[in-house]
Amino acid sequence: MVIVGIDPGYAIVGYGVLDYRAGRFATLGYGAIATQPGTPFERRLEQIYREMTRVLQKYRPQAMSIEKLFFTNNKTTAIDVAQARGVILLAACQNGVEIHEYTPMQVKQSVVGYGKAVKSQVQEMTRTILKLDTIPKPDDTADALALAICHGHCAGSLFRLIK
Amino acid sequence: MVIVGIDPGYAIVGYGVLDYRAGRFATLGYGAIATQPGTPFERRLEQIYREMTRVLQKYRPQAMSIEKLFFTNNKTTAIDVAQARGVILLAACQNGVEIHEYTPMQVKQSVVGYGKAVKSQVQEMTRTILKLDTIPKPDDTADALALAICHGHCAGSLFRLIK
Repeated sequence: MVIVGIDPGYAIVGYGVLDYRAGRFATLGYGAIATQPGTPFERRLEQIYREMTRVLQKYRPQAMSIEKLFFTNNKTTAIDVAQARGVILLAACQNGVEIHEYTPMQVKQSVVGYGKAVKSQVQEMTRTILKLDTIPKPDDTADALALAICHGHCAGSLFRLIK
Repeated sequence: MVIVGIDPGYAIVGYGVLDYRAGRFATLGYGAIATQPGTPFERRLEQIYREMTRVLQKYRPQAMSIEKLFFTNNKTTAIDVAQARGVILLAACQNGVEIHEYTPMQVKQSVVGYGKAVKSQVQEMTRTILKLDTIPKPDDTADALALAICHGHCAGSLFRLIK
């Protein structure tokens, strides 16, 4: 099963694409879509939508694992992240990609085995699970890979349960 | 100048299209995009994007006047409205429509002349300005027409200032 993990944002969208098969992950690709501050907001949305569509059409994932949004102290940022997340979900829907949402705590629990793990632990476990030489940069990309691992684990256990 | 007013939402998106010329408004069309509760959220986004694109391609507005988002008490709703607003802005950008944002207070000030006017006053003034027999339903559509009037007034005064 090909899974794309997404760390949503409007300045940086992290993505990571994994193939999860027989309990093992193969890393197909990862990166970040970065938009320029100062560009009109709708152009940033259009760029995210366009580049996201390109990623989905390149890797043809069955599933998208995307971080669930919560309200932070910065409410203006949260609105803009949500607007960007809207165009990412649209691209997924248009390309027949199933959407699964996870909270940061679920990701930590799944990747590290401890829901209150710190960021560096999640990143190091992501690197180890995927047998990468270094932790992918920026953080958004590492977070996106962790989201993809989380869905692999969850969907994997579900699959075993059903069988 | 053809202006489309938008009251953003994920269950109902109100729209109203006006032609503003020499200080007068002509009503070209109005309506609402309604999505079904219970439908997966990304499908609702896809429907909003598709129908919004159809409206923009039918009326070819130069400007979109859309309500600025604020955080209400219901934060979950606000995230979903913002996600829907993202795909509306995307459709505008892809169709070369300039985006202008107004707060509810700016709309009231512009339509009624009083920033703390109540909803029924805004609706009645909208009906009067556009010489409609009845107030368009649902409220989202009436609100969208008020947003279009607001931009006509603002852009009109700006035009006079520049001249």
